[in-house]
Amino acid sequence: MKEPYLAEPSAAEIPVPELFGGIGYQRIADDSGELPRGTVIHDDNILHGYPSIGRLLALERGLQQQFHAPFWMEEKVNGYNVRIARLNGRVLAFTRGGFVCPFTTDRVADLVNTSVFEFEPDLVICGEVAGPGNPYVESSPPFVSEDVRLFVFDLARWNRTGYLPYGEKMALIEQHRLPAVESFGRFEPSDLVRIRKILLRLNEQGREGVVFKEDSADNRRAKYVTSNSSVDDIRATAYTIRELPSNYFTDRVLRLVLFVDDQGLEQPEGLDRELGAAFIDGLLAAVRQFRREHKVYRTFRCRFRKREHAVLLLQHLDRVTRNVQIGLRSLERQGEYWVLEFDRTYPALNGLLGHLLGGGLVVD
Amino acid sequence: MKEPYLAEPSAAEIPVPELFGGIGYQRIADDSGELPRGTVIHDDNILHGYPSIGRLLALERGLQQQFHAPFWMEEKVNGYNVRIARLNGRVLAFTRGGFVCPFTTDRVADLVNTSVFEFEPDLVICGEVAGPGNPYVESSPPFVSEDVRLFVFDLARWNRTGYLPYGEKMALIEQHRLPAVESFGRFEPSDLVRIRKILLRLNEQGREGVVFKEDSADNRRAKYVTSNSSVDDIRATAYTIRELPSNYFTDRVLRLVLFVDDQGLEQPEGLDRELGAAFIDGLLAAVRQFRREHKVYRTFRCRFRKREHAVLLLQHLDRVTRNVQIGLRSLERQGEYWVLEFDRTYPALNGLLGHLLGGGLVVD
Repeated sequence: MKEPYLAEPSAAEIPVPELFGGIGYQRIADDSGELPRGTVIHDDNILHGYPSIGRLLALERGLQQQFHAPFWMEEKVNGYNVRIARLNGRVLAFTRGGFVCPFTTDRVADLVNTSVFEFEPDLVICGEVAGPGNPYVESSPPFVSEDVRLFVFDLARWNRTGYLPYGEKMALIEQHRLPAVESFGRFEPSDLVRIRKILLRLNEQGREGVVFKEDSADNRRAKYVTSNSSVDDIRATAYTIRELPSNYFTDRVLRLVLFVDDQGLEQPEGLDRELGAAFIDGLLAAVRQFRREHKVYRTFRCRFRKREHAVLLLQHLDRVTRNVQIGLRSLERQGEYWVLEFDRTYPALNGLLGHLLGGGLVVD
Repeated sequence: MKEPYLAEPSAAEIPVPELFGGIGYQRIADDSGELPRGTVIHDDNILHGYPSIGRLLALERGLQQQFHAPFWMEEKVNGYNVRIARLNGRVLAFTRGGFVCPFTTDRVADLVNTSVFEFEPDLVICGEVAGPGNPYVESSPPFVSEDVRLFVFDLARWNRTGYLPYGEKMALIEQHRLPAVESFGRFEPSDLVRIRKILLRLNEQGREGVVFKEDSADNRRAKYVTSNSSVDDIRATAYTIRELPSNYFTDRVLRLVLFVDDQGLEQPEGLDRELGAAFIDGLLAAVRQFRREHKVYRTFRCRFRKREHAVLLLQHLDRVTRNVQIGLRSLERQGEYWVLEFDRTYPALNGLLGHLLGGGLVVD
C-alpha cells in the first residue's frame, strides 16, 4: 500500500545533500532530470531509484498488450519499498525517496543475511518490508503476524541501471538464503486460466496481488492487485479520509470494480458488505475515538536495536510527513530491543469533527 | 442532491445579461458582490438568489448551537432548486444560478396553480422540483413515481430580502393550494426524541432529510440529511466517479457515518452492504455498459408542452454543463407532450475505461 500523505519533500535543486551516521551522500529528489527520484549518489557511485511499476486493470488484454515474451509472476507484498546496499562499509536501507530509513537500517541484520555483501559488495537488494511492527504503513499482509519481515523482489548493482536477470537473481537468493517474495512461475498470456486461479486464491487469502516481469532483456513489468487489496487499503486509511487526496478512495473503488468485472466474479454481495464496512468501521472508530479522547490518532509500535535510531526515525517522519502530526508516546527498553510507540494525529479530520460534533454548520 | 458537475459558469463581470423568450434580464453570476449568486434583475426589480443552507451533522449540539427560538422542521426533497416568479407578465422558473430553466418554465402550469400571481404579482415561489422525469438530477424521491412534481418550501417577494414568515407562508399555500413540502411541526431543541423519531422514519422510507427553520425574525436555518440520502447520492452518481470532484464521495461517506453515530444506530450491517452496493453496482453497470456499447452514458427522459423549450433546455445544458457531453437522442410528440430523450456521456470515465480495458497501464 502506498501512503500518499507520507509525501517525501521534493526540491527544485537536485541532488540534495544528506547525512546519516557520519556518511554523506546525495539524493535525487524528483524525476525532472536523467536520474530517477530516489537515486542515491555516494562519491562517484550511483544507486538508481526504484521506479513505479505500471498497473494493469484488465488482465487478458493487458498481458497481451504489455508483454512480448514469457513472464515471471511474483507476489506483490503490502509494505514499503527499500533498497539495501553497502556504503562506506556500512549496510544501509534507502526509502523510495532516497532517504536512509533509520528503522530498516537498524533492523537490517534481523531482516537479511548481510554477509551477502562480503561476497557481493556492489549488490543492491530491492524488497518490501511488511508487517504490523512497521512505522509507515497501517496494514500488513496476513502472512506476517508480528514485527516485520523483508521480501526481496529484485537484485541490482551499484552503477548499473536495471535489475539482474531472473536466473542470476534466483541463484544469488538461493546461495545467500535471501528472503524472497513468492514466485508463482513463468507464464505466457495464453496461461490466463492458471494465472486467474492463482489471483483468486491470493484474493481469498487476503493477499495484495502480483507483479509480472518479462523474462527478456527488455524486462517489461506490470502489477495487478486483488479486490481484497483495495478493500484493505480503504479499511486501513478510512481514518485519514480528510488527509489523503480523496481520489485515493475512488481510485481503489474503481480498481475493485474492475477486478470483479475482469475476474468474472459472481454478484459480489459479500464484497458489497466488505467495501461498505471498510469505510464505515474505519470512520466510525475515528468518530468514537474523537468523542472519547477528543482526538483522532493512531498508535504505531516498532522496535529497534539502537535507541538513537528510534530518535532518528521520529525526526525522519517529522521531516517527510505532511498533514499528519507525529508524537512520541514512549521509548522503552524491552529485552534486547528499544520499543518505540508514537502517534500519528490527523489535524484535518480532528478540526472537522471538532466543528461538526460541537454543533457547527458546514456549507457545501 | 447537488449535482456538482453541473457547475453554472461564473463571470468576472457581473451582472450578466440574459434573454429568454424575448424577455431581457440580468443575472448575478457569483457571490463576490452584495447580491447573492443567482439574483435576477429585471428593470429595477430584484429577485434575490436563494443562498445555500448550512448543514448540521450532530443533531443535539447543532440544534442547541444554531437556534435561539423554536423552529419548524420541514422535509428536504431530493431534486433541484427553483424560484418561480412573474416577469413582464410571464411566469418563469429560475435555477439556483439565475438562469431561466426552459423545462420548469415549460411545465410550470403542471406544477403549480399559476393564478396565484393574479392575486400576488410580486410573489416568488421557492421550491424543489423532483421526480424521475427531471433533466438534471439522477435520483428522485420515493414519493414521486413518474414525471416531476414541485414542493414549495419558501415564499418571497420581489425587491425584498428573506422569506415570508411561516404563518404568512402557510396561509398563502393553503389559500392558493400550492404544493408544499411536508411540515413536521414546530419544535425546540428539547424535543430531540421526537425529532430523531421522525428522522429515523424518513431514513427508513428512503427520504432525504429535513430543513430546520427558526420561527423568528432572524429565521436561522440548518439542514440535516439521512444516511439513506448519502447512499442514494453515491448510487446515483457512481457512474460519474471521474467527473465529480472525488470529495463528493468521501463527504457523503463521512456524512453517513456521522448520521449512524449521531442517531446511535446499531452496528449497521445492512448499511455496510448498501454503501458497498451503491459504489459497486453503479460502477459495475458503467463498466458493463462500456464493454457492451463502447461508451458510458445515461439517458434522461423528460416531457415538454412546447417543442422549442426542449431545444432551449439542450442549449442550456450544453452551456452550463462541464466535463459531461450532452447528446440529443430523440424528441417526439406523444399525446399533448413533446418527449425529449438525451444522453449524458462521461468523457473522463470513458477515456480511462478505454485505456484500461484495452490493456493499458496506469502509473499511480
